[in-house]
Amino acid sequence: MEYCAGKTFRYDHASVQTYASVVGKAENEGPYGGGFDEVIDDNKGGADTWEQAESLFQKKAVGHVLQKARLSPDKIDLIFAGDLLNQCVSSSYGLKDYYIPFLGIYGACSTFAEGLLLAAAMVNAGYADRAIAVTSSHFSSAERQFRFPLNYGGIRPPTAQWTATASGAVLVSETGKPPFIRAATAGKIEDMGVNDQNNMGAAMAGAAYDTLKRHFTHMGSHPQDYDLIITGDLGLVGSDLLHDLFARDGIAIESRHKDCGLMLFDRSTQDVHAGGSGCGCSASMMCGHFLKRIESGELKRVLFCATGALMSTTVIQQGGTIPGIAHAVELTSY
Amino acid sequence: MEYCAGKTFRYDHASVQTYASVVGKAENEGPYGGGFDEVIDDNKGGADTWEQAESLFQKKAVGHVLQKARLSPDKIDLIFAGDLLNQCVSSSYGLKDYYIPFLGIYGACSTFAEGLLLAAAMVNAGYADRAIAVTSSHFSSAERQFRFPLNYGGIRPPTAQWTATASGAVLVSETGKPPFIRAATAGKIEDMGVNDQNNMGAAMAGAAYDTLKRHFTHMGSHPQDYDLIITGDLGLVGSDLLHDLFARDGIAIESRHKDCGLMLFDRSTQDVHAGGSGCGCSASMMCGHFLKRIESGELKRVLFCATGALMSTTVIQQGGTIPGIAHAVELTSY
Repeated sequence: MEYCAGKTFRYDHASVQTYASVVGKAENEGPYGGGFDEVIDDNKGGADTWEQAESLFQKKAVGHVLQKARLSPDKIDLIFAGDLLNQCVSSSYGLKDYYIPFLGIYGACSTFAEGLLLAAAMVNAGYADRAIAVTSSHFSSAERQFRFPLNYGGIRPPTAQWTATASGAVLVSETGKPPFIRAATAGKIEDMGVNDQNNMGAAMAGAAYDTLKRHFTHMGSHPQDYDLIITGDLGLVGSDLLHDLFARDGIAIESRHKDCGLMLFDRSTQDVHAGGSGCGCSASMMCGHFLKRIESGELKRVLFCATGALMSTTVIQQGGTIPGIAHAVELTSY
Repeated sequence: MEYCAGKTFRYDHASVQTYASVVGKAENEGPYGGGFDEVIDDNKGGADTWEQAESLFQKKAVGHVLQKARLSPDKIDLIFAGDLLNQCVSSSYGLKDYYIPFLGIYGACSTFAEGLLLAAAMVNAGYADRAIAVTSSHFSSAERQFRFPLNYGGIRPPTAQWTATASGAVLVSETGKPPFIRAATAGKIEDMGVNDQNNMGAAMAGAAYDTLKRHFTHMGSHPQDYDLIITGDLGLVGSDLLHDLFARDGIAIESRHKDCGLMLFDRSTQDVHAGGSGCGCSASMMCGHFLKRIESGELKRVLFCATGALMSTTVIQQGGTIPGIAHAVELTSY
């Protein structure tokens, strides 16, 4: 079969107008604590269930974005949202009271980049004046859905990652100011044959490699042209694999590469094994840390590549593998 | 809170180039049998599990679309896909071998309209030359995920709908020929307080009403301006509710309204209670019946409004409600 190059979309009229993040206790105790807009210390915020708590994180992240932009929800034309829960319920229940036209997306932990890509595309093409992209994850709702009930106390292997309890939201519009969203490349589904739901990083590394390579080719750019190449949540295992894959092409990507999964928590003091994961991991690192630095010009050109493991417990139980996907979004301060 | 009108997107450069549908045995025994591209008589097609079978339906639908267009997968810039299964696995596993840039979407049974809306937007704006939208559903995989294991033999109440075993796919590009995709309106999440997972129609009717009304307002059109207003799978209960909601505005929509859920099966001879449902229901009716008639000019102006019940068993078990959503896409022969 012929190799499908796809396209990299170019944007001239899309900026991140405002951004916000809401995180749980452990996330705020990590190296980037203090940079988030709101911390929900008991990870529940008065909700009755973990699912409702995750919805609350998403609702609050969008609330902060609107407040910062001094806009009421009726001024937003479109919202792209998705999450890890079955039927993306954190999004639908978290956002229904805003009553904003809603397009649900699913890309596992790549969801934040998919939302950014689509929100920027719709604003850049003039379909929407203002579009929001938002996502979330929650350790407790994810763990019980994908692995074991929390009370079971299952042992986590070293390759396991820790699902972030966090949400991040951005409002995209044409402000003429940074952070500018300049380009985006949609990922393909890559199946590396991994079938261990405690080794997500390995399942996603190939997808990140493919998307990044295509993005560089289409943009005529090289990893060294970027201040940073930020992956979503490859963690320790996946990051090493990504470096190896680029090394085969003679490219040393390590010096420019940061992984949100290796940043959100302090792996030496926090018991997160191979790093953080979940849609909220890269969303909160982007909205709580990186976007500020692009806005200020400290970072001039950044490639954000969120990675997702398209894992299903049903398929795993049937002996299937975990395909990965990754979407890339290029942001600049100029 | 201020009422959010949202926007209706207009398209001048988007047509359905080819379309295809693959259905199961019961669907082909319904009133529109014989119009589908392929029938998988045992609903399984050699797959080991129902989930794999559903993936196969989707893979085949895309295969037919490519074959009709005489294109190899590498000529497709983008594919929008989603389905009812947790983590949308019919889509990811069904499509991964095509290796086409993939954007996952989730809108429950409204997914086909969401895919059409986004594929047309991306082609119309010039981001993609060719984009596919595809979705599927399968009675056996849906029933065991959302309700009871098949072997349990649960009794279905009269309001229950029958999930279609079917897939539909369209290839969108600028052909300059009908069916033209002219406009689309993204829906909002509407929660009517329904908490009965055997009464999806009632959960979705309010969303359909809201989206259709906004579409008419933005287009300056009236239900009588359309040859048909086609809803996805409101079924008997939801269709009656939709008629009632419009009747309150003094609009008799019945004469123009058709519901795919009431068309796919023959309710007098097939035991489907309140009608068909599932992402594949409206997708197969559109691709197996309506698009041909728009292409030929027999139908000149059609408004397709697929409806989704954003139901989650977890949330239902926690005492939550089932919010609905509906997206509208306007198609013309001229």
